[in-house]
Amino acid sequence: MQPQWDTVAIIGVGAIGASIGMAIRQRGVAREVIGVTRTEASAEAALEIGAVDQIATRMEDAAATASFIVVCTPVMAIADHVRRCSAAARADTLLTDGGSTKGRLCRELASLPKGVFVGSHPLAGTHEVGPRAGRADLLQDRMVLVTPVEQTPDQAVQAAGDFWKALGAKVRTMEPEQHDRLLAFTSHAPHVVAYALAAASPVEALELAASGWKDTTRIAQGDVDLWRQILLDNPEHTLAALANFETQLAAIREAIASRDHELLTQLLSQGKKNRDAVGN
Amino acid sequence: MQPQWDTVAIIGVGAIGASIGMAIRQRGVAREVIGVTRTEASAEAALEIGAVDQIATRMEDAAATASFIVVCTPVMAIADHVRRCSAAARADTLLTDGGSTKGRLCRELASLPKGVFVGSHPLAGTHEVGPRAGRADLLQDRMVLVTPVEQTPDQAVQAAGDFWKALGAKVRTMEPEQHDRLLAFTSHAPHVVAYALAAASPVEALELAASGWKDTTRIAQGDVDLWRQILLDNPEHTLAALANFETQLAAIREAIASRDHELLTQLLSQGKKNRDAVGN
Repeated sequence: MQPQWDTVAIIGVGAIGASIGMAIRQRGVAREVIGVTRTEASAEAALEIGAVDQIATRMEDAAATASFIVVCTPVMAIADHVRRCSAAARADTLLTDGGSTKGRLCRELASLPKGVFVGSHPLAGTHEVGPRAGRADLLQDRMVLVTPVEQTPDQAVQAAGDFWKALGAKVRTMEPEQHDRLLAFTSHAPHVVAYALAAASPVEALELAASGWKDTTRIAQGDVDLWRQILLDNPEHTLAALANFETQLAAIREAIASRDHELLTQLLSQGKKNRDAVGN
Repeated sequence: MQPQWDTVAIIGVGAIGASIGMAIRQRGVAREVIGVTRTEASAEAALEIGAVDQIATRMEDAAATASFIVVCTPVMAIADHVRRCSAAARADTLLTDGGSTKGRLCRELASLPKGVFVGSHPLAGTHEVGPRAGRADLLQDRMVLVTPVEQTPDQAVQAAGDFWKALGAKVRTMEPEQHDRLLAFTSHAPHVVAYALAAASPVEALELAASGWKDTTRIAQGDVDLWRQILLDNPEHTLAALANFETQLAAIREAIASRDHELLTQLLSQGKKNRDAVGN
């Protein structure tokens, strides 16, 4: 069987980029994977764990030979990197990304000098960083959201979706704004909550932290620079989701303050119902 | 080697009670374990998984023959169950519990008709319920907080600590009020946050919930009746911990609203620092 793609370039070989590279190579989805990084240690690690066939230090060099380009750099760098790749790319190149916010990005990249960009967001986070956190099965059975704009050709949407499916993921297509609105609830606001909860715990309490606290705050291990960028790239939706959360929290707080057993039962039950619906 | 205890009675064979029974029996910590439940299905399950040697339906019957009694019923039932056991017990019986709140309980039970009560809280939660959720290693390497009051004899504190250590746990002793103040930060407020966050997520967003949302809300799977009791048995400390949290949250929210990169970095870093200090 022919590989689906000839040369795939992965810009940025952190945990997500390296995982994508490993999955492509293990599944034979492309003939060749070129990883782009300027950091020597990352280059070595990416080669060593088998995430890439070769490394380029200039993204333009990789882009010139690639038929498919996946930009896996931090949120606020993606638009610039996509434009630089596009300028160096072939006319028929498809570009996508792995960023956690989509609205501003997909509007900004609706038309490019060369090639077509369609946004993607693999819902497969890890708070670990660097190529050595890469795992070939990171996308296995996970969902990837593909977020075209009106101008995006159907063929590009289809091709991007096929790429993620070939890596074992499920694919769902939605508008970038819808993505940002929903992800504010499921990811961006929860990160704010986790960071705030961890910060609010006095040091003397931390040594008593058990599995409940650890679970609830786990994502506060996430890279601060990355998360600052994500939150500030989706501020309105994140604030709206936080407002929803703070309303719920205030209701529970008041039920506790007024020792209202019935109301407290009702409020906790609503949370449990949603949580149970999602499963483990 | 002689077992540490002759007969241990476990009042309530839910997930925690059953786990304690399994650990006692597998480690030979007592000659015999009597479980108390009035529910036929629980009795059968507890016997079947090897959590107990025999079942009694009246706690007084079990208490009369036990040298050590562990009350593992819901928080608001513990005081009554300890008193009933004490009334039926031998003069030298040691009683403890597995409840998540300690202040009111330990003051109320500072003196008993017969025997001595010393409060315990195994930091080994599970959101699963019933004897079949029992695991012999639930307490292995977990911490158990033992919470004597001024009147508690040192010998009873020592004996209770030795019991938990024999089950593989680490033991720390602290005043009941200190326990409730610290656990509000590490467990009670996080539960409120998890329930509120799960409740605040609209249904259309739930299908996009990935590992971050799942971790952050995991403890909202906890039994609602149990958690209502815990929160309403420690309202002041829980409200104080929530106030701390809401202050942190408001600071992050305002940093997002004002697009203050520097402040947001600083606030997220404080959370990450605390979370990283605890580890996985």
